Amino acid sequence: MPTFLNISTSLDGFVAGPDQTLEQPLGEGGESLHEWILGLESWRRPHGLEGGETNADDALVRETHDRTGAFVMGRKMFSGGSGPWEDDPKANGWWGDEPPFDRPVFVVTHHARDPLTLGTTMFTFVDGVEQAIQLAREAAGDRDVQVSGGASVADQALSAGLLDTLIVHVAPLLLGAGVRLFDHVDPRPIELVHALGSAQVTHLTYRVRR
Amino acid sequence: MPTFLNISTSLDGFVAGPDQTLEQPLGEGGESLHEWILGLESWRRPHGLEGGETNADDALVRETHDRTGAFVMGRKMFSGGSGPWEDDPKANGWWGDEPPFDRPVFVVTHHARDPLTLGTTMFTFVDGVEQAIQLAREAAGDRDVQVSGGASVADQALSAGLLDTLIVHVAPLLLGAGVRLFDHVDPRPIELVHALGSAQVTHLTYRVRR
Repeated sequence: MPTFLNISTSLDGFVAGPDQTLEQPLGEGGESLHEWILGLESWRRPHGLEGGETNADDALVRETHDRTGAFVMGRKMFSGGSGPWEDDPKANGWWGDEPPFDRPVFVVTHHARDPLTLGTTMFTFVDGVEQAIQLAREAAGDRDVQVSGGASVADQALSAGLLDTLIVHVAPLLLGAGVRLFDHVDPRPIELVHALGSAQVTHLTYRVRR
Repeated sequence: MPTFLNISTSLDGFVAGPDQTLEQPLGEGGESLHEWILGLESWRRPHGLEGGETNADDALVRETHDRTGAFVMGRKMFSGGSGPWEDDPKANGWWGDEPPFDRPVFVVTHHARDPLTLGTTMFTFVDGVEQAIQLAREAAGDRDVQVSGGASVADQALSAGLLDTLIVHVAPLLLGAGVRLFDHVDPRPIELVHALGSAQVTHLTYRVRR
């Protein structure tokens, strides 16, 4: 089953602003990267919120979630922390008791830990991007594996030839600094599958050519 | 009249590949950034070539050229060189006796030089991006000023608040290294005006918000 990247960036290619802290996990200005998604029905419902827009952006988010059988993400995206888990103030992730994933999530970390189940989501902690994607493929059944970020996990997966598709949501802003996506990945041709732009965000979907 | 950036990048944000030389002025792999334009009627005609496609990409290129009253570009885009003109093997530019611009072109360089007329194009050499844009605005009449690159001139113009519109043509490839556009520009919101994607290239047009 295909493995795809699903990530939001600024026009200048940052997935987080500078000066990431626990209070400001996406760095300075980084929250603006995700403004486009917060009003959509397909984002609000899994987050326990009612209402929301049902436009073309919403359809794309819903379809992307529905095709996902398992998620892969970096430690920083999971908790903002690094190092031993006992020192991590967000050791159970950002999302409280009911994370919105509703699928197996594989978290890339060097720090071993037993799986964690919260609501309908089970987090499994895996040492290495390749192994995390391998386990996610096994868990995803006949659905796809979504690599959700951050930039380091995305770039490693791409350079290891493990991504079939890139879905990049380009938010209408310049961040100027922060965490850069595609920071010296291996050069290769890609193929545009779909482009959809609105005032809120531009979605670019590429097939990675082999 | 508005001043706009018009530039092609890879998905990972490079406007040229690594290892730029006289033989390979766009660096390794950089030629692929412009493949999308070479077959278009609106590119071929000013370059003295017959035929070409007349699709939506072609219409956008034609419209972009027609609205342009004057161009601004960096020294490297003009000749690939740096330093004194007498040591520059391409001191009269890349384009031979009939450059395709057919408009005043202002070349940013620290090295003073008299204006150069080739065919229907007059090149004027100006020390500094701001001054080049100022002179281009005066020369453009009621048409717009096009900043054509390279990345350094583009970033300087953007950070100085001199760009009203960004037209970025995202070519379907990852270059991995080279000359990066938007390399730590000032953070600011922008506004998508138009997005158009095809297998060849994705055109993103943004208004710069003040």
